[in-house]
Amino acid sequence: MSAITRAIGIDIGGTKTVVAAVNASGEILARAQFQTLSTRGFSAGLADISSAIRQVLAEALLAATDLTGIGIGCAGPVDPIAGTIHNPFTLPGWEGADIVGSLRKQWNLPVRLENDADAAALGEFRFGAGRNSSPLVMATLGTGIGGAILMDGRIYRGVAGTHAELGHIAVAENGPECYCGIRGCWESIASGTAIASAGRAFGFADSHGVFAAAHNNSEASAIIERAAQATAAALWTLAHTIVPQRIILGGGIGEEHFDRFSSALRNQIERATQIPKSSIEIAKAQLGNAAGVIGAACLSFQAHEEKGSQSAAQNSALPPRPFR
Amino acid sequence: MSAITRAIGIDIGGTKTVVAAVNASGEILARAQFQTLSTRGFSAGLADISSAIRQVLAEALLAATDLTGIGIGCAGPVDPIAGTIHNPFTLPGWEGADIVGSLRKQWNLPVRLENDADAAALGEFRFGAGRNSSPLVMATLGTGIGGAILMDGRIYRGVAGTHAELGHIAVAENGPECYCGIRGCWESIASGTAIASAGRAFGFADSHGVFAAAHNNSEASAIIERAAQATAAALWTLAHTIVPQRIILGGGIGEEHFDRFSSALRNQIERATQIPKSSIEIAKAQLGNAAGVIGAACLSFQAHEEKGSQSAAQNSALPPRPFR
Repeated sequence: MSAITRAIGIDIGGTKTVVAAVNASGEILARAQFQTLSTRGFSAGLADISSAIRQVLAEALLAATDLTGIGIGCAGPVDPIAGTIHNPFTLPGWEGADIVGSLRKQWNLPVRLENDADAAALGEFRFGAGRNSSPLVMATLGTGIGGAILMDGRIYRGVAGTHAELGHIAVAENGPECYCGIRGCWESIASGTAIASAGRAFGFADSHGVFAAAHNNSEASAIIERAAQATAAALWTLAHTIVPQRIILGGGIGEEHFDRFSSALRNQIERATQIPKSSIEIAKAQLGNAAGVIGAACLSFQAHEEKGSQSAAQNSALPPRPFR
Repeated sequence: MSAITRAIGIDIGGTKTVVAAVNASGEILARAQFQTLSTRGFSAGLADISSAIRQVLAEALLAATDLTGIGIGCAGPVDPIAGTIHNPFTLPGWEGADIVGSLRKQWNLPVRLENDADAAALGEFRFGAGRNSSPLVMATLGTGIGGAILMDGRIYRGVAGTHAELGHIAVAENGPECYCGIRGCWESIASGTAIASAGRAFGFADSHGVFAAAHNNSEASAIIERAAQATAAALWTLAHTIVPQRIILGGGIGEEHFDRFSSALRNQIERATQIPKSSIEIAKAQLGNAAGVIGAACLSFQAHEEKGSQSAAQNSALPPRPFR
């Protein structure tokens, strides 16, 4: 028997869910995708997930016993210790769903859950733009702004096991109000939602319209310039607090407009006098849409390496969280 | 023979230097103080330091062999690995001074060097407002703004062993230009220097004048309000990135005006929806002016606990720094 080197990765978003069998080289052996449709309730979703796992295992010619386990990256908030989902906005109908317990029972395998930004960063660390980098900051610029901090390839956690919420770094005194509780956070200025919202005042239908017009329309150009400057300021702040070896820009906007955002960041970091700026690398995410599902599988690989196949031990290794 | 539980702590600022013998309970057994006068060059300073160490040892009835070693907290930048000082602004005449090597040779004791903000935070962690807290953020609001992040009581270091530069967190898009390389960093708005500079336009002589007038002068009030909001925004950002168990406000301004700054911070954090805000405590520094020298001694206690009395090993345990 060779060492077990495959896992199921599950990437759960508000719109769609991807399930894949991934090997220890980060290659996808088989994948399945379906509409999440969380409003049908969690049992319907769980049935879809298990059906996709069966399909993927069959296609990859694997049995459940060939796996290190199952890793799940899910649109947060999630509780990685309890193994439950708490996202009434993006996954209505699944509040409090015990996805870890349910899959563990159904598949008799270790199961680990993290939010999607953390999973994607872990995927990039192992197999993408973050290899051999520590500390590693990954920012995901899309509809919202998420991010993750990895130290020695492990998800950074603060008090009560809480991961960072990078999208809510404060960058502008008088910026737009955000649901996070402050005005002018990064997400309130540079997310797809924020760009679209700023663009509507000038007749743009969505963020794509604003980006498309930015080269010849001064209002659109100003909106994108402000988003790029907010991104540069937020990552400047991370460069002065975390002092990362590498910063990865990912997500739909971060990848499609990497040159625009990374050049604003480079110009800003280039002016830094208090940190070793030449030690901080800026990179574009490499795994694209697959980062989530590959990263999810990496959660299982990491748990397996750390503690063997006891997923309960993985979860209980974290301190208790007094919130949610 | 009982375990060695005393160290010499040295707190070097641009104006004055304090040397003390400190025991393992954080008590100062004897202390000496003198004008730094760095422009005389480093050999004059070194002679003063060694003379003060002799005086302090005599007063505390200690011999050098009774010590775990010597810890130095120094106005940064310093290079904790090379053991050298690189602060042409505050300590002109000492650029590149090998203070660790010099004292190690003179005293035949392990010597450890860190910047003053890191040393003060270590002092508060062991014997002050930071006890049993991890992660711990300490912000020092004075002439400038410094700070430190401790994780499990150890100074956090990013790439190339670099510590955080919390004063240069970006908080305001269009704030004053700072020597750090960005506009509107925390220090550029909320430091004593920044408050004084903003106050001069309205006839105030210094930051004390602005604070004193803030209750009945609208310009002074607006300057302090902006400084308090900048502080709340910077610490909000740290709450969303480091997610500390405790935030300590220290330094002359942070302690004297603790109520003003901490209430702005509390009001802001109270609105947070994305982090476990009730897990984040806000505290006033407890060691006052002694934090630096007690923290400096703690550097020696920590080195002694970790590796015995090989200060060279302490320094070489850090990765090489490709800058400075």
